[in-house]
Amino acid sequence: MAITLYDLAGADAEIRFSPFCWRTTLALAHKGLPVQTVPWRFTEKAELFQATGSRRVPVIVDGERMVADSWAIAEYLEQAYPERPSLFHGAGGLAHAQFINAWADAIMIPGIARLIVDDVWRALDSRDQGYFRTSREAHFGTTLEAVTADRDTAVEGFRQTLTPVRLALRRQSWLGGLSPSYADYIVFGGLQWARCVSAFELLAESDPIRDWRDRVLDLFNGLAGSARLFA
Amino acid sequence: MAITLYDLAGADAEIRFSPFCWRTTLALAHKGLPVQTVPWRFTEKAELFQATGSRRVPVIVDGERMVADSWAIAEYLEQAYPERPSLFHGAGGLAHAQFINAWADAIMIPGIARLIVDDVWRALDSRDQGYFRTSREAHFGTTLEAVTADRDTAVEGFRQTLTPVRLALRRQSWLGGLSPSYADYIVFGGLQWARCVSAFELLAESDPIRDWRDRVLDLFNGLAGSARLFA
Repeated sequence: MAITLYDLAGADAEIRFSPFCWRTTLALAHKGLPVQTVPWRFTEKAELFQATGSRRVPVIVDGERMVADSWAIAEYLEQAYPERPSLFHGAGGLAHAQFINAWADAIMIPGIARLIVDDVWRALDSRDQGYFRTSREAHFGTTLEAVTADRDTAVEGFRQTLTPVRLALRRQSWLGGLSPSYADYIVFGGLQWARCVSAFELLAESDPIRDWRDRVLDLFNGLAGSARLFA
Repeated sequence: MAITLYDLAGADAEIRFSPFCWRTTLALAHKGLPVQTVPWRFTEKAELFQATGSRRVPVIVDGERMVADSWAIAEYLEQAYPERPSLFHGAGGLAHAQFINAWADAIMIPGIARLIVDDVWRALDSRDQGYFRTSREAHFGTTLEAVTADRDTAVEGFRQTLTPVRLALRRQSWLGGLSPSYADYIVFGGLQWARCVSAFELLAESDPIRDWRDRVLDLFNGLAGSARLFA
């Protein structure tokens, strides 16, 4: 039976933009597990997920098990399907991926939000737009449009924060080494978030991270590359 | 036969402060390998290391092999001594540690340098002080004293860059997971660098990273904890 993934969606239900859901989508594909996604909106009744203690997607349902939180889902998949391709390439890979996950959550995701948050709002279902604007404007202390107003120059600072990604990819083809690991999906999720809702280009034309991004877009028969983009 | 480690030293040859040499010192101890260190100064004749293509320490000599660069040394030790405790806990651990190493080199080390560079200068041998001041002042575009003048406030920004370390250590005892890995030594090396040459405290009193730092100081019979400190 296919695993169900509750997946954040936009006004167009085919727009799936959450960076955390993309981590899970690629982790499921890496494991070669059949999946059926359910489009989810920020303001839907998260009581459905009560058993997980979370109110946010991604959430997966695998038979009797319901698991929330992209990191917890990756750990669950690794434990439940040990015979399928490893997401972490060993215990050290899992432990060190905690750091990469923390870096993405604390540095990369906020860095991208500050450049595209008004584009995210535009792609949302009208039921979600009020909630999103209110909560994010409270967080930033200003309007969504003011947050991104200087993004053509602010993007330079963001690009500098990606230096560790650039240096690591100078030494190996994937963050996972010789083949992709969950670390690749963690970092890619942020770039795919922007790609799905915004025409704003996060990476400079000469950035070698682009080549890696293209290769992640091609994985699993172009799973991420064929995603619907908001326009 | 013991491995020889060329180890950056201060005016007091017992002061060993290089963050990169500390990575290697702890990696050698992790592998349980006997080591004999040779104090090294910035301005010594690096022709000795010509075979490695590097002019900088750490450099190790293991029988016929000479290896430079802390990362290359860690990889060498892992390959040459596979039967001893693993530095990376598997292939994924090594690949993901590339990211942590890149993060430390690009973000953490420059962040610390900017807070303690004049303290580093003070601890140096007089033969090194001229070279160090000239090269670092050219890099920063100002005097060493001017670089660190605002450190009591600038340290807040540095502490924020450590968020990924803090978050990862909230979920596991070591960056390596259940036991220390080379990732712990990478990050610890930076803190130990400051500790060896400066009375300036990098971490807030309530920072949970302190507990982890204390535990690294205690490893290998207090190897790092008993290091000579400049005063």
